[in-house]
Amino acid sequence: MLVSQSSPANAFADASTSAQQRALLERRARLLGPTYRAFYRNPIHLVRGSGVWLYDAQGRKFLDAYNNVASIGHCHPRVVEALSGQAATLNTHTRYLSEIILDYAEKLLGTCPPHLGHAMFTCTGSEANDLAIRIAQHSSGGTGVIITDFAYHGATIATAQLSPAAVGTKAVPAHHRTVAAPDTFRDRGRAGRDFAKNVAAAIEDMRAGNIRPAALLLDSAFSSDGIFFPDAAVMREAADHVRRAGGIVIADEVQSGFGRLGQGMWGFANYGIEPDIITMGKPIGDGHPMGAVIVRPQLVASFGSNTGYFNTFGGNPVAAAVGIAVLEVIEGEGLIENARMVGAYTADLLRTLKTRHGMVADVRHNGLYFGVELMAEGDEALAATKTSAVVEAMREDGVLISSCGPRRNVLKIRPPLPFARDNAEQLAETLDRALSNW
Amino acid sequence: MLVSQSSPANAFADASTSAQQRALLERRARLLGPTYRAFYRNPIHLVRGSGVWLYDAQGRKFLDAYNNVASIGHCHPRVVEALSGQAATLNTHTRYLSEIILDYAEKLLGTCPPHLGHAMFTCTGSEANDLAIRIAQHSSGGTGVIITDFAYHGATIATAQLSPAAVGTKAVPAHHRTVAAPDTFRDRGRAGRDFAKNVAAAIEDMRAGNIRPAALLLDSAFSSDGIFFPDAAVMREAADHVRRAGGIVIADEVQSGFGRLGQGMWGFANYGIEPDIITMGKPIGDGHPMGAVIVRPQLVASFGSNTGYFNTFGGNPVAAAVGIAVLEVIEGEGLIENARMVGAYTADLLRTLKTRHGMVADVRHNGLYFGVELMAEGDEALAATKTSAVVEAMREDGVLISSCGPRRNVLKIRPPLPFARDNAEQLAETLDRALSNW
Repeated sequence: MLVSQSSPANAFADASTSAQQRALLERRARLLGPTYRAFYRNPIHLVRGSGVWLYDAQGRKFLDAYNNVASIGHCHPRVVEALSGQAATLNTHTRYLSEIILDYAEKLLGTCPPHLGHAMFTCTGSEANDLAIRIAQHSSGGTGVIITDFAYHGATIATAQLSPAAVGTKAVPAHHRTVAAPDTFRDRGRAGRDFAKNVAAAIEDMRAGNIRPAALLLDSAFSSDGIFFPDAAVMREAADHVRRAGGIVIADEVQSGFGRLGQGMWGFANYGIEPDIITMGKPIGDGHPMGAVIVRPQLVASFGSNTGYFNTFGGNPVAAAVGIAVLEVIEGEGLIENARMVGAYTADLLRTLKTRHGMVADVRHNGLYFGVELMAEGDEALAATKTSAVVEAMREDGVLISSCGPRRNVLKIRPPLPFARDNAEQLAETLDRALSNW
Repeated sequence: MLVSQSSPANAFADASTSAQQRALLERRARLLGPTYRAFYRNPIHLVRGSGVWLYDAQGRKFLDAYNNVASIGHCHPRVVEALSGQAATLNTHTRYLSEIILDYAEKLLGTCPPHLGHAMFTCTGSEANDLAIRIAQHSSGGTGVIITDFAYHGATIATAQLSPAAVGTKAVPAHHRTVAAPDTFRDRGRAGRDFAKNVAAAIEDMRAGNIRPAALLLDSAFSSDGIFFPDAAVMREAADHVRRAGGIVIADEVQSGFGRLGQGMWGFANYGIEPDIITMGKPIGDGHPMGAVIVRPQLVASFGSNTGYFNTFGGNPVAAAVGIAVLEVIEGEGLIENARMVGAYTADLLRTLKTRHGMVADVRHNGLYFGVELMAEGDEALAATKTSAVVEAMREDGVLISSCGPRRNVLKIRPPLPFARDNAEQLAETLDRALSNW
């Protein structure tokens, strides 16, 4: 079976696809090849974006309730201004001194726990996780990394091996371990309560195989596992197990970070965990290719002198200018507070749908990150089919969402942070219509 | 010994470093940590770039004879225009349809041999090489990659393992093989003539160890090995050996590509090699974080359906707009022809220095890529010290170059492509002064 973290639909067009789109799809297959898969049976040809809105070539407007890259809103004017101003002035690399990268590092570190003293810059979340694993293995002397069963951590060789959601469990090398995600819903939340125990068992299993643990690597929202927000105590206990075994804790905030969860900048903070490394990506630059590794200084002391790290484009002045603009917008526009308030309002609307549609089994959320689990009388294949149909129906009805989870039965709703109450209402009404057709 | 492909000097300031720079260096060490190393004993605090010029905070002007990221010139107005226009309009990802990425793919593929039918986009050259290795291993069923002794191919875990220049030979895993670079100078060029034989021997050695070869991965200019342009016949023979053994040929054009070598867009073409994959990076976006893998369609047919590949920022509309602008500038401003003409003129000036300075042992070049090998009566440590001193002296005298090679005795000269004859004269005169002080 083809598993892919972010492709609920193939690039094959259905009957509703226009001739123009078909031509575009054929050209795409010819030029880009088979690894490029489009969202939706009837893929969208976008030409413009602004705030929470995306516009297709026919001028149709879509409410974006999915994309967290343009997390502060599509094409934010402050970002465009910072980007073009700096690109016209200077765009070199970090082998020369520059003040703007230090201003950015200072500002970004200011949002993190004080024990994480150094910022290192990459161009993608994949590169950030790849570097974090490199640092973890170097500093711990271990090799084994613990992830969840259906994790996604990137597309480099090393991070793809830690992304069963994208490449299947068989591609996870023997020195790593996967544990059940802290599923707070299935098995009446047993997997959630047992998460720390499962991590401890994975460590024991590593020891039995003579493997030294390097890290516990967790997406703070368990995005591809189905979106879960487990008990803080269980998460802290899991982190403690890994630390006691000589490994470090890496908080992958590529999806959950930058205010999405509505309680602060970072998802791990909701659990009271103090990670040794935070990795960042997607929302960090409103679409500009950026990533970051925020690290406990002790962990890179030896790595720095023995190996070094240089990323040609990472942390260049343009990236720094964009990064500063994004942080200023999050703060200046009160986007974390908005995520909290509108997130709660949206969750209420979604819970109302639960009372009206038997299919809706669970509504999970933190801030503006929602997982809506759909069931179909115990028939998993049917639930996945219905979930996909709901996503497709909403696209036809003008609202963009997606799905996730190992059973593909969880609606993944993750709008840009300037999402307003009326956007939430449109989302809920559209979902109501989609669910009513089943 | 610390070996690092691109850090000829430490971040430690010397006597000529100003108080302001010292403060900057201290702040940098505190915020970014020890992996960030600056060029030059007296690092440069840059604030502006334009064409072949870089300006420091004191308003001092430096002739850039080193940076190939801003290969079409620093802050090119066409790139800034494309970047800001597209960033203000739409910046999403490749799960939606977009025309601009197809226009870019078509244009980029048009510069490549016709058998390479697909373009895949990443955000860095490291990601491009990482993906190329992934495809090579998947399509060949082999694992072993052959590289040169002092190669550099990237900073991800998988590409760092293939970058002895950055991490030392010991970090190259047992299933890969390193071969002597085709050194056209030392041993009277024996390593150059024997290159194909050495590759054949590496394949035999793999076979003896029951390792299936996946790829031969070569920088077309052997940048970190010391900059060599070996015989085409030897290169073709090496490629044939790998193909016969079931591996593929990957041309790493991250440093040599986009017209630098003055004969066309790609360095491998000078050897008459038809690679199975071309990887691209640094100069592809005039500083915008971009990379690309251009691949023989058959190689990704199975990879595409089994594994897929998605890169969040890779090939987004802004990257496509920038990429198109760069290709148009290379064509519109005749930069390849300029690289050829001014490259030849510069090489003549450098050869004149060879007649005047005993230290200059060899001048190698293709287009605007020069390796100037310095010797000191057989004393390798002294040659390295002198090479470093020449680089530092030139920086003080207003011209930026660097050094490379396993012995750190090769001046690496690689200016932006709009380099003019008077820039070449300034470079040669400055080098003349630096060499005269020894």
